[in-house]
Amino acid sequence: MENFEFNVPTKIIFGKDVVNETGKHSRNFGKKLLMVYGTGSIKKNGTYDKVIKSLKKENLEIVEFSGVKSNPVLSHAKKGIRIAKDNKVDFILAVGGGSVIDEAKGIAAGALYDGDIWDFYTEDVKIKAALPIVVVLTIPATSSEMNSISVISNEETKRKAGFSSPFFYPAVSILDPTVTYTIPPDYTAYAAADAVAHLLEGYFTHSDQWSPIQDRYVEGLVKTIMECTEKIMKNPADYEGRATIMWASTLAWNGLCVAGLRDAEGPSHMLSHTLGAFFDTPHGAALTIIIPNWMSYMKNKYRKNFIQFAENIFNIKTGDDDLTLELGIIALKEWFKKIKCPVTLGEAGIKNPDLEMMAKNVLITAKAWNIKGYDEKMIVDIFRECL
Amino acid sequence: MENFEFNVPTKIIFGKDVVNETGKHSRNFGKKLLMVYGTGSIKKNGTYDKVIKSLKKENLEIVEFSGVKSNPVLSHAKKGIRIAKDNKVDFILAVGGGSVIDEAKGIAAGALYDGDIWDFYTEDVKIKAALPIVVVLTIPATSSEMNSISVISNEETKRKAGFSSPFFYPAVSILDPTVTYTIPPDYTAYAAADAVAHLLEGYFTHSDQWSPIQDRYVEGLVKTIMECTEKIMKNPADYEGRATIMWASTLAWNGLCVAGLRDAEGPSHMLSHTLGAFFDTPHGAALTIIIPNWMSYMKNKYRKNFIQFAENIFNIKTGDDDLTLELGIIALKEWFKKIKCPVTLGEAGIKNPDLEMMAKNVLITAKAWNIKGYDEKMIVDIFRECL
Repeated sequence: MENFEFNVPTKIIFGKDVVNETGKHSRNFGKKLLMVYGTGSIKKNGTYDKVIKSLKKENLEIVEFSGVKSNPVLSHAKKGIRIAKDNKVDFILAVGGGSVIDEAKGIAAGALYDGDIWDFYTEDVKIKAALPIVVVLTIPATSSEMNSISVISNEETKRKAGFSSPFFYPAVSILDPTVTYTIPPDYTAYAAADAVAHLLEGYFTHSDQWSPIQDRYVEGLVKTIMECTEKIMKNPADYEGRATIMWASTLAWNGLCVAGLRDAEGPSHMLSHTLGAFFDTPHGAALTIIIPNWMSYMKNKYRKNFIQFAENIFNIKTGDDDLTLELGIIALKEWFKKIKCPVTLGEAGIKNPDLEMMAKNVLITAKAWNIKGYDEKMIVDIFRECL
Repeated sequence: MENFEFNVPTKIIFGKDVVNETGKHSRNFGKKLLMVYGTGSIKKNGTYDKVIKSLKKENLEIVEFSGVKSNPVLSHAKKGIRIAKDNKVDFILAVGGGSVIDEAKGIAAGALYDGDIWDFYTEDVKIKAALPIVVVLTIPATSSEMNSISVISNEETKRKAGFSSPFFYPAVSILDPTVTYTIPPDYTAYAAADAVAHLLEGYFTHSDQWSPIQDRYVEGLVKTIMECTEKIMKNPADYEGRATIMWASTLAWNGLCVAGLRDAEGPSHMLSHTLGAFFDTPHGAALTIIIPNWMSYMKNKYRKNFIQFAENIFNIKTGDDDLTLELGIIALKEWFKKIKCPVTLGEAGIKNPDLEMMAKNVLITAKAWNIKGYDEKMIVDIFRECL
């Protein structure tokens, strides 16, 4: 086990109808808030009304800022920062999924910063202060509600950049499974795929000979998320299924699954971010395209881990390690297909991509995340496997 | 899944030689500290010297308070409070296992309280302030380094009482597996048994029909702790074994294994505390006596959970549920015996116990912890199974 630090101070409020307690859990952070949300689904499904009612009950002053898109963009975050500053809000309330939370984090830092927040994302400038962040989670997928990461895209430079700051832990995250009943099937699937991808990054890439805590943690959660996905695809209002996938997705990327793992990296996210930046591919869909093809390319390097994956997640035991490994990759791809996620670039509507330019973009992320061992040719080859 | 709140703000510093960073991680909490420790093992194994050297490097002023015993007692905690007050210390540094940490928590609260701290433990008086607590963990077992619980015994009333307060989360806990190499075999075993017991409490008693997150979390950690115990019994300085059991034990009772579980209770701890209070039985040993006998008594009530335990932890699959259940209890008892823990009161040197008086003592804990369904006769019967 490698040395590590673990410190996740976020308070989780989990359960049926806790969305109605948003005001109660927000009032400690001030009187005036910027409510950040997306493009309107919370108005259709009733979450907006519940949140507003709960905030008003506590006499909180609400400044609204909507229109966050599913790959949140820098220009929009900057608008939010302007509004937060002009209105002198005390804290940020994010009502949405990972995109909304990630942009809200950028706004929280930007509201107390005179420079360009893109410096935080790309120039290793450290955040020195941020407004408190409260979250009402509506799409469980990224764990942004319980981690210190924010990912934002710069439309001009086609760069999707993510980083971590201790100021980005939400103070409180409200996880109410009932608000997730109306997530449409495609985003339910993308969300599940994203959570599974988070768990698998470190599981696939670590170099430990023995890591039973982290391995079993990952295997348990991956199997659980897969079971939940089947349940909620059948019945979108299955409370136990929605609740279980919500908590499992939060636990999938709050740092526990990689704490102590040696050499754990995030290559699938590194590669997928370029698809998001170039083609606006939903993050979960980008991952389902990348992961099985990346696995095929990397099967010698991560042989031991891939075999364990096949055996322990999909219960594949053939007695022939090569065959087991191959069947594991196929089983994952088949699961992605079963939940109707794309596994090729073509299926995501991406035609004739410029693989060299994409590879150059990936290498910028590789450098920022300190992921070694990838060169342009290799990345082109991996993307070619995705065609 | 039941509604829950989860909020563990403790910062974990984990790894080889991090004990030498104690000063660095303590200096934010003030200049003067009360260093609480036990009866001298840290002096023999070098941990004391490392901690002192690290504290002095940061020019911290150290007031020492030693002599915490393995079932920490109220009278000793009160002495510590007196010293903390007289010296106006800024924070408490606990260097030890669960007993030292638990007493340090009591001292941290008592230092800012004019009344008797026993009120916190028994009278539902709420803590309003406590000094910050830093921990250097030397025996991984109780998770006190990452939870909000403190358990102390009152020698006069023979009451062992535990409770939870948000002020009891350590600010920082330093987990260095190398300081655990010298834990003797009996306490290594008691510690492993205690961690396993923590995991099993909720797993055995919850009433959910489907709880895959928590069940798999528990099953993974229990199997891991059992594997580690075998490794470190063979080689006490096996770093990976010591590191893995240290982190697994911390994860065993930091709230995650019961978050969202319906009706989870702690009957084994309830019963065991009376053995600690009456006979000063080491906590882990009390649990290994109680658990299998409690299981035999409760096999109808918790049938489903006990069968799952046998199947998923010990891989027992007979096709006959009754047999599987019985074999699961036997397997657990055999594991306790294998690591040389007692499974009867006699083996712990307890002769002719007054079962009725013990049962009355248990009922006080049952009331405090709101555990229903146990009456005096039942408790006497369970203790009788332990004879």
